[in-house]
Amino acid sequence: MTNVNETVSDIMMALGKRARAAASQLATAPTEQKNKALSEAAKAIRASMEDILKANAKDIEKGKADGISASFLDRLTLDEGRIEAIAQGLDAIVTLPDPVGSIIAGWDRPNGLHIERVRTPLGIIGVIYESRPNVTADAGALCLKAGNAAILRGGSDSFHSSRAIHSCLAKGLEAAGLSADAIQLVPTTDRAAVGEMLKGLGGNMDVIVPRGGKGLVGRVQEEARVPVFSHLEGICHLYIEKGADAQKAIDIAVNAKMRRTGICGAAETLLIDRSLAESHGKPILLALQEAGCTIHGTEEIAQLADNVIPAKEDDWSTEYLSADISAKLVDNIGEAIAHIATYSSSHTESIITEDEEAANRFLAEVDSAIVMHNASTQFADGGEFGMGAEIGIATGRMHARGPVGLEQLTSFKYRVRGNGQTRP
Amino acid sequence: MTNVNETVSDIMMALGKRARAAASQLATAPTEQKNKALSEAAKAIRASMEDILKANAKDIEKGKADGISASFLDRLTLDEGRIEAIAQGLDAIVTLPDPVGSIIAGWDRPNGLHIERVRTPLGIIGVIYESRPNVTADAGALCLKAGNAAILRGGSDSFHSSRAIHSCLAKGLEAAGLSADAIQLVPTTDRAAVGEMLKGLGGNMDVIVPRGGKGLVGRVQEEARVPVFSHLEGICHLYIEKGADAQKAIDIAVNAKMRRTGICGAAETLLIDRSLAESHGKPILLALQEAGCTIHGTEEIAQLADNVIPAKEDDWSTEYLSADISAKLVDNIGEAIAHIATYSSSHTESIITEDEEAANRFLAEVDSAIVMHNASTQFADGGEFGMGAEIGIATGRMHARGPVGLEQLTSFKYRVRGNGQTRP
Repeated sequence: MTNVNETVSDIMMALGKRARAAASQLATAPTEQKNKALSEAAKAIRASMEDILKANAKDIEKGKADGISASFLDRLTLDEGRIEAIAQGLDAIVTLPDPVGSIIAGWDRPNGLHIERVRTPLGIIGVIYESRPNVTADAGALCLKAGNAAILRGGSDSFHSSRAIHSCLAKGLEAAGLSADAIQLVPTTDRAAVGEMLKGLGGNMDVIVPRGGKGLVGRVQEEARVPVFSHLEGICHLYIEKGADAQKAIDIAVNAKMRRTGICGAAETLLIDRSLAESHGKPILLALQEAGCTIHGTEEIAQLADNVIPAKEDDWSTEYLSADISAKLVDNIGEAIAHIATYSSSHTESIITEDEEAANRFLAEVDSAIVMHNASTQFADGGEFGMGAEIGIATGRMHARGPVGLEQLTSFKYRVRGNGQTRP
Repeated sequence: MTNVNETVSDIMMALGKRARAAASQLATAPTEQKNKALSEAAKAIRASMEDILKANAKDIEKGKADGISASFLDRLTLDEGRIEAIAQGLDAIVTLPDPVGSIIAGWDRPNGLHIERVRTPLGIIGVIYESRPNVTADAGALCLKAGNAAILRGGSDSFHSSRAIHSCLAKGLEAAGLSADAIQLVPTTDRAAVGEMLKGLGGNMDVIVPRGGKGLVGRVQEEARVPVFSHLEGICHLYIEKGADAQKAIDIAVNAKMRRTGICGAAETLLIDRSLAESHGKPILLALQEAGCTIHGTEEIAQLADNVIPAKEDDWSTEYLSADISAKLVDNIGEAIAHIATYSSSHTESIITEDEEAANRFLAEVDSAIVMHNASTQFADGGEFGMGAEIGIATGRMHARGPVGLEQLTSFKYRVRGNGQTRP
């Protein structure tokens, strides 16, 4: 050991090797054993309420001293309710069906071979996250249920909280007779550890899921030498097509933007068919403003409402994550689809219309992870999709896309059963 | 332009941009239009028999002057039969179901939202291949049918042949009213073009499929900054478990090794349960030798047959691709599975046994792309799996695994239909 980075590299490579051994054990672990680990971890979390709160207090104290923002502090802070929610999250994953071993497809060949495509674990999943300590439990548990080993790298600001939660996961694994290496927490806050994960730990890192802001996700996307499930941002569009029902348009626009402005599925741009400017556009803009939203609009939009801030070119590619929305009129569905193709981050887009033909065209031509008709973009969520839980949302087109739930954390293999067939 | 590499980079970046525009058109092209392009291309191939043969003659002449090997020359050489087979291959892809738009799964949510997972194209697929000019048509057609733009980079040795075949594909595309940019052939033999593809053409390369020897695939796997569907080698195992039927074991062993020794699904290592050494092992080894196979075995194997070459440690990780097989006795299924976990290339492994429990354990615990029971490893092929055609076989666990057919050349998106739902 000649310097610190070499030491971090050694630590991380050893972590990777232990993860591979654990992944091999997990790949064939019965559902009951994985579920027992999760249930026991939930029990340990409830029993360790005091310890977790104490650890969290240390992180909060340090965070305040470092002058972290109020929203950051909120994400970091745990209380009894939030800790109970973490335990409930683990219990909920117990109830989800185990994807491993499930048969995706099966068919017979004329020569009598029976072929099946069967789900298998992916292997080792790295999760790199920031302030939210609950990700430690959520992500670790989802990886485990899908038969994967997890290497978790929490933010340095939530280091003590994550460590306290992680020790409960380790207790659960041990109580179920599984290796505690199945869910490992990177034991150092040195940023070089992230670099090692991105380089792939010598083949012991199969996919990385970054959870956090644009800075973190951008770095991971840029530097990772292994596959990444992620979305950099959610520039989601709501298009009010000329066949739209006015009330649905108003309700959905307000919900899509204002229900929660800080999530990736929040609408950021409103496109309104020019023929509906007065009938639908005006009341939508007013309803948004009444709900507290600032409109960044074109000159035409400014003629429909007061206090419209002139939209600049940048606004069309801005993820506000706040009570702001960009708005413009479009000539027709073709222009709306073209605008989305140019500016969207391929996350979620929704069309509001009673015209089925227009809806079908939008759903077919817009190539985003999630395309919607007459529904709020805020439904872009694994829980809302019925996946039970998600580890994130992906906007790439490889392997996982949209909410990344248990199924997306698996691979598959082909199982071929014969009775002595040889190939002619 | 200050140097040649800059020019190649410019050419390739322009190719990528044209491919993206074509991919956008293809994504929503109707099945009939894509099929028409393929049928017309097949017609053009048949009509251009003379031109293709002339172009091929140029490549052969150059190859002979360069002193290429006999097997290389065989792969390069076209005749009327092989050209007709290329046309038939295109016609066969016409008959395959179009994966784009097919619904993988659909479900209703309690709030009335109907959610569907729908297949979409991947985007732009790069195919890098060596001497076989038929890959130009096979790969280009498969990419097209799945709605993807293709950028094909054939070997410099088959440059004229590939160009002649490619011009037929372009005719087909144009006859169907599709952009000829949907299937582009890299117009230079400069190796820097491959480097540009591996770097991702500035976001205009979604996945690369290398088709060729270990040198090519290894370079692509090492250097590619985009996802790769590939297998470096096929070190396939055949395990004769203690419950094996002797005749099935003999027939399958000879077929798995000797039917065609140069394909990736050929068996390279034979594992025999020690209790079957005399009863099954001996006749299997003799049958292999009678078929012309050289045995590289342990001392125990050498006691069962004459002329056994002593196996060295290297033999267990060697893909012979010739009439050679490595062989050893194992104590039990656990040792067989452990040997496979250590030495396999995760391509295809088969167990021969009448014991269902042993078969199930092998199929569950061996984590290769294809696991078989009582069948020859030579069935590891997209055509034999009923996929109609394959662009290659992948041993990675991300997105595609095993034979890469039309479905594996697609992604998906979520289509959500509502009637005004907002999220509470």
